[in-house]
Amino acid sequence: MTQYKYDVTMSCGGCSGAVTKALNNLEGVDKFDVSLEAQKVTVESATLSEADILDAIQKTGKKAKVAEQ
Amino acid sequence: MTQYKYDVTMSCGGCSGAVTKALNNLEGVDKFDVSLEAQKVTVESATLSEADILDAIQKTGKKAKVAEQ
Repeated sequence: MTQYKYDVTMSCGGCSGAVTKALNNLEGVDKFDVSLEAQKVTVESATLSEADILDAIQKTGKKAKVAEQ
Repeated sequence: MTQYKYDVTMSCGGCSGAVTKALNNLEGVDKFDVSLEAQKVTVESATLSEADILDAIQKTGKKAKVAEQ
């Protein structure tokens, strides 16, 4: 299991809801947290790569990048 | 050229921006308008079906349906 962190620009509950929906629908995600306050998304997965998950988040149309540790 | 209309739930500029980005990236779209105030999206295309466009909008994670005329 690997944990990945992303910075995602989300302005309202509709924005964070869209990211939540995308991660709910993404196969291979074991656990995730979307924080509108922190503008952060944390995802745990045993099978997906950092890039796979970033791609799924960006498909919602949100500006997203891998968070600096 | 056919014009399609959709009801899309968008709560803020980030939401409507995400839909705008998705339609900008969708090949076959000739013209479109995203209205946050009206919660409406209008798309003109010569090649895409009503369902193709609805699918692209829904991929942003927004609640969307074909508008009743």
